[in-house]
Amino acid sequence: MTSQNPVFIPGPTNIPEVLRKAVDMPTIDHRSPLFGKILHPALEGVKKVLKTTEGQVFVFPSTGTGGWETAITNTLSPGDKVLATRNGMFSHRWIDMCQRHGLDVQVVTQEWGDGVPADKFEEILTADKEHRIKVVLATHNETATGVKSDIAAVRRALDSANHPAMLFVDGVSSIGCYDFRMDEWGVDVAVTGSQKGFMLPPGLGIVGFSPKAMQATETATLFRTYFDVRDMAKGYANNGYPYTPPVGLLNGLNVSCRMLLDEGLENVFARHHRIAEGVRRAVDAWGLKLCALRPELYSDSVSAIRVPEGIDGNKVVSHALNAYGVAFGTGLGDVAGKVFRIGHLGSLTDVMALSGIATAEMVMVDLGMNVKLGSGVAAAQEHYRQSAAAAQKAAA
Amino acid sequence: MTSQNPVFIPGPTNIPEVLRKAVDMPTIDHRSPLFGKILHPALEGVKKVLKTTEGQVFVFPSTGTGGWETAITNTLSPGDKVLATRNGMFSHRWIDMCQRHGLDVQVVTQEWGDGVPADKFEEILTADKEHRIKVVLATHNETATGVKSDIAAVRRALDSANHPAMLFVDGVSSIGCYDFRMDEWGVDVAVTGSQKGFMLPPGLGIVGFSPKAMQATETATLFRTYFDVRDMAKGYANNGYPYTPPVGLLNGLNVSCRMLLDEGLENVFARHHRIAEGVRRAVDAWGLKLCALRPELYSDSVSAIRVPEGIDGNKVVSHALNAYGVAFGTGLGDVAGKVFRIGHLGSLTDVMALSGIATAEMVMVDLGMNVKLGSGVAAAQEHYRQSAAAAQKAAA
Amino acid sequence: MTSQNPVFIPGPTNIPEVLRKAVDMPTIDHRSPLFGKILHPALEGVKKVLKTTEGQVFVFPSTGTGGWETAITNTLSPGDKVLATRNGMFSHRWIDMCQRHGLDVQVVTQEWGDGVPADKFEEILTADKEHRIKVVLATHNETATGVKSDIAAVRRALDSANHPAMLFVDGVSSIGCYDFRMDEWGVDVAVTGSQKGFMLPPGLGIVGFSPKAMQATETATLFRTYFDVRDMAKGYANNGYPYTPPVGLLNGLNVSCRMLLDEGLENVFARHHRIAEGVRRAVDAWGLKLCALRPELYSDSVSAIRVPEGIDGNKVVSHALNAYGVAFGTGLGDVAGKVFRIGHLGSLTDVMALSGIATAEMVMVDLGMNVKLGSGVAAAQEHYRQSAAAAQKAAA
Amino acid sequence: MTSQNPVFIPGPTNIPEVLRKAVDMPTIDHRSPLFGKILHPALEGVKKVLKTTEGQVFVFPSTGTGGWETAITNTLSPGDKVLATRNGMFSHRWIDMCQRHGLDVQVVTQEWGDGVPADKFEEILTADKEHRIKVVLATHNETATGVKSDIAAVRRALDSANHPAMLFVDGVSSIGCYDFRMDEWGVDVAVTGSQKGFMLPPGLGIVGFSPKAMQATETATLFRTYFDVRDMAKGYANNGYPYTPPVGLLNGLNVSCRMLLDEGLENVFARHHRIAEGVRRAVDAWGLKLCALRPELYSDSVSAIRVPEGIDGNKVVSHALNAYGVAFGTGLGDVAGKVFRIGHLGSLTDVMALSGIATAEMVMVDLGMNVKLGSGVAAAQEHYRQSAAAAQKAAA
Repeated sequence: MTSQNPVFIPGPTNIPEVLRKAVDMPTIDHRSPLFGKILHPALEGVKKVLKTTEGQVFVFPSTGTGGWETAITNTLSPGDKVLATRNGMFSHRWIDMCQRHGLDVQVVTQEWGDGVPADKFEEILTADKEHRIKVVLATHNETATGVKSDIAAVRRALDSANHPAMLFVDGVSSIGCYDFRMDEWGVDVAVTGSQKGFMLPPGLGIVGFSPKAMQATETATLFRTYFDVRDMAKGYANNGYPYTPPVGLLNGLNVSCRMLLDEGLENVFARHHRIAEGVRRAVDAWGLKLCALRPELYSDSVSAIRVPEGIDGNKVVSHALNAYGVAFGTGLGDVAGKVFRIGHLGSLTDVMALSGIATAEMVMVDLGMNVKLGSGVAAAQEHYRQSAAAAQKAAA
Repeated sequence: MTSQNPVFIPGPTNIPEVLRKAVDMPTIDHRSPLFGKILHPALEGVKKVLKTTEGQVFVFPSTGTGGWETAITNTLSPGDKVLATRNGMFSHRWIDMCQRHGLDVQVVTQEWGDGVPADKFEEILTADKEHRIKVVLATHNETATGVKSDIAAVRRALDSANHPAMLFVDGVSSIGCYDFRMDEWGVDVAVTGSQKGFMLPPGLGIVGFSPKAMQATETATLFRTYFDVRDMAKGYANNGYPYTPPVGLLNGLNVSCRMLLDEGLENVFARHHRIAEGVRRAVDAWGLKLCALRPELYSDSVSAIRVPEGIDGNKVVSHALNAYGVAFGTGLGDVAGKVFRIGHLGSLTDVMALSGIATAEMVMVDLGMNVKLGSGVAAAQEHYRQSAAAAQKAAA
Repeated sequence: MTSQNPVFIPGPTNIPEVLRKAVDMPTIDHRSPLFGKILHPALEGVKKVLKTTEGQVFVFPSTGTGGWETAITNTLSPGDKVLATRNGMFSHRWIDMCQRHGLDVQVVTQEWGDGVPADKFEEILTADKEHRIKVVLATHNETATGVKSDIAAVRRALDSANHPAMLFVDGVSSIGCYDFRMDEWGVDVAVTGSQKGFMLPPGLGIVGFSPKAMQATETATLFRTYFDVRDMAKGYANNGYPYTPPVGLLNGLNVSCRMLLDEGLENVFARHHRIAEGVRRAVDAWGLKLCALRPELYSDSVSAIRVPEGIDGNKVVSHALNAYGVAFGTGLGDVAGKVFRIGHLGSLTDVMALSGIATAEMVMVDLGMNVKLGSGVAAAQEHYRQSAAAAQKAAA
Repeated sequence: MTSQNPVFIPGPTNIPEVLRKAVDMPTIDHRSPLFGKILHPALEGVKKVLKTTEGQVFVFPSTGTGGWETAITNTLSPGDKVLATRNGMFSHRWIDMCQRHGLDVQVVTQEWGDGVPADKFEEILTADKEHRIKVVLATHNETATGVKSDIAAVRRALDSANHPAMLFVDGVSSIGCYDFRMDEWGVDVAVTGSQKGFMLPPGLGIVGFSPKAMQATETATLFRTYFDVRDMAKGYANNGYPYTPPVGLLNGLNVSCRMLLDEGLENVFARHHRIAEGVRRAVDAWGLKLCALRPELYSDSVSAIRVPEGIDGNKVVSHALNAYGVAFGTGLGDVAGKVFRIGHLGSLTDVMALSGIATAEMVMVDLGMNVKLGSGVAAAQEHYRQSAAAAQKAAA
């Protein structure tokens, strides 16, 4: 009976009933006009979620990792220089991918728990008088550490340096969860997937390309076929797809966007913030610290919680699964064993969150940690009950 | 997004994924041999769940109420005398049904919160020298008050009085939740439905008839056609049904029985007891009392919790729904407004139960009750974490 | 792989994807306001499908048989006289039910294949000067013989005889398939189920009661509790139900009505007629005859096809299942072995019908019947292709 | 109501009920041991379907096109020489992909409708004394033309030429439909997808790599990250995945393999052949020709049917959809407008096939083609009824 409890991993998230049903479709002919009636509203919906009117959206049968590859192979050429921060497992992996694709990555190493350093970026960009840096990579939400970075600040760094580099943002675990503004922040490629803020099963890599990024596809010489956005664009223009499209997931994406937009993006963000804040109150009541170093870095998608010396964070996760049938996230890479993660994104309520918090408490006590049963729950309850009325008022 | 949180009503319960899929079937020809391959294993499974080898099982497109009507119309004649206790809304309704069918019901009134009085039954049966009482009705689990009655004691009362009356038991919210022994207790008609211990959607009235009850069908003159068990028996003997059978629900019943029997009935009961006990620890920590008057009456299916003077129990339920999207049960009949109910039957985990307990706490504080946030949760957590290890050891 | 081929039984029908998903619901609290938002639109939808504004609709967790019992037990008293025709298995069963409920049924026996004899009814009613006949029963569509009766003519018979008897109509396999007009025809109780024109799984008995029928509930003394429409009415008035409602099926009924009404009832009827006519053209091309004696009796829901002497109609059905995995209907009662039935109601297209016709041809040839492969298909194709354009034009 | 009729496109195919339910899963933690219990049986199942014991299987969230890219980027370096045939749209596209990845493709152009020319390959390979050709590409089933090529003959050509080139086979629309023998034929990379013989929704690119192909990954310098099989292998070894796995589709793949293997691969192939042969008999009865030039090239997955001069094949497809709601495949590339295609792979029965054939007849008559209604159906029926008994006997 593994499906009774909600999951608290930072994606894939709990899938709303209506989205499961939207994805679970009988076969239609994807070369018939029926397909366009699913595809185009989905693309338009994603544009609204990305807050872009200028950009183009492409959806690949893939994942966020495929989205990263789409971003770089369509816009860059071997040897091109890229500026990036390594501050967690996912930024690390994007950097690794760039290097494996023959790019020259200038890496700014940050403590895991810290964000993208817009000030250092500004220095580096200012110093790059020849504009050798073609792209700046930024991970909006480091899923591994629960860190939110300030993308608007990265844009200001580029602007202050008067640097023409493109800005590529990994928004896999931020888009649809908290505020993301593709046009306003001048994001040239935005990358996400189906299984986080869109609350769908995994299987879609979703990218937004600015006009500038589209232009870069004309000169980029990295090889690409599967992930070629120009083939996609050509397909879309004919209500088609360059190969067999994942129709059910696209239908789900369409419905997901409608759900998010009907609720209102700002309400979606406020809901995520409200649930996340309850988890943070619990962490505080437990006397524990987040991996994220400062409050402005706290992610509303996931909290990585540092465990005390002598406690294995992975043990928290495995014991939760084995003893209570609940899934939390393990620490990855540099913080493996040092943290456990509570995902609080997607289709989650305060009530569900409380069961995750209560489970974490039982697990920590079971493992001998000095945590008082009910303490985190009470702190979260206080937050939830006070904010529930406000949330309802706002919705009315 | 009403389907995200579990429900805590005393049925219909949360439906396991696998049962939803078993019920959701494409149409098959119910007059073909395929039907028998669904029907007969389902009937055999129910027999095992009822712990009967002598009895026959019949399943109607109906509910537990239809099961009651099946019980009386197949075995009794207008004017027949019936002995029953009124100690809650569901026993009340069965008595009302008997009266509306022209039966002469001798009602023993008990306080709501008390159980079936086996001792008083023994007195009455002993006094009934002419054996005018044809049937004794007993509600195993009074869903309205969370009271479990002692059916074995009722059987002993009949035996001590040396009385030939049949024993009919409403096991709607006990069967599949806690111990029920049709043959050992000499139950002549057992009544239940699909939506409680079987964890299915509502739509099936399920009855077990002892050989003695089957014999009574030959002389009973109450009119019945839809609920005639002899037509059912004739249908079953030919892999058929007297009218259009609810194939999907029967398929679900088949799978449900397999789930229960694979887990082991005693493990199923232990699981219910474990979850229920956590809820009771929470109630105790809140300083509240159950409607059930004595510990031996506490039901492992549902707890009816008395609210203090000045608090409207219905308000607890409506506020939980409106503010937190969680469904509890209201008080019914004599205890309307005086209690609220937490259902803890069917497909429920300790983790899910904690979210219900946590929600009840928020609601009670919101309504001004003197309850400490986290207090009930902590008491339940302590019980769950201590019993989790034991449960796992038992399962291994 | 039994679910690949469509079924061609006269109900339960093929279930449209959208209805399967509507029925397959997670549990909600049926005592909360959510329930009313499902129930009331479903009831209103059924009223429109019945073409009644004056009547009340009640939906029971049951079947059409339960609907018959609802009709008689709520309106009649033991010994009351009823007029009915026996012209097939389902009219036979309703008569049997009446008799088992102590009613005095005057039966007009018709050949199986013939309809309700409005003229004989008029004679009998005219002769019944004392108005001892309380109810006239009529089976609109005899599912066993594929015979449609003229209910308007029965109403005219009652009116001509100036007789106050109520008119009860079994519309189980007509309502939602071909024209039914409760108010215009003065139908006092209309009975149907979920699994025919509504294209849902079985499990709902659906009745419409006229004001006159509602009034009769006040004086009727036949016992009823489960099927008591007054309890239902009281429940509905409070957004409730007298026992646990089958929420998923009610939700399905709501969506089904919307589908039917969005398509337009007259379009639904035209679609059924078009599909049915193709089947009849095939039967004609095979040189076979329908069980229905005259064209005006031909049912648009189901065709019962007479097999030649020496051929066992049941063999047609069992061979179709065993050799080709296709379900047709067997002959029942007086016509057992003499016919096989092709159901063509509910969610069926011309394309699906062609596969049923083609299968029947293979089966008949396999069994040695003198039928030319492709002959019936060609006749049906000609009809379908000519009417397809017309149907599209009408829809545009 | 687009989902009522079966689809007759050459993939995605009709999805069996059980596979839809297997794919439609609630979220589990893909980093927990639960994932390995889905992944490994799926991989083992695919190995059996590929008939390989030596090879390794990798499954990507992708499509067959992604499988092609996986094949070449993991094993080749820019400038490497590849030998291939262009004899249809899909072989054309693989060649195009190779060229876009900087490979030097020697293209043997064949008429569309012809197969891979093993003899010409042998000549070329024999002439390539320096073994500059690193890989031979072969499309087992050209979906665009309905042509099956002889892969064993290609292997013999390699062997006769004593040439060490690797053999890569596109088995997207053959694997799981007709015989494929990875080990016996010395296939170094086999490529397929989820939506054809596996009868699943699209979304998985599936590849089998021989030990030789695995070795080539060590020296290949084409860039790859998303499609890197070494990362996949590393993930699998730890019950993991290099990024977020499509758990539901993998679960579906597991169940699909079990279905295929339980039926028996040879039975699966015989079933496809039987259905396909019926379609071909119909084509013959219509007086039409297949695009495939010779009987040994006829595909059991899809038939591309040449339409007479003056008829637009695309019109056949669009009219079928608009007038009858049935999906056939259009002609692609060189044969656009000249053919229409009937897919007969995956979850299809003879009964379903007959509805497709019958529809095609109506369409052709509607468009003024000289085809007799029922003629193709009759030819197919004769084949199906004669082979049905044989098929049943074989299954018994």
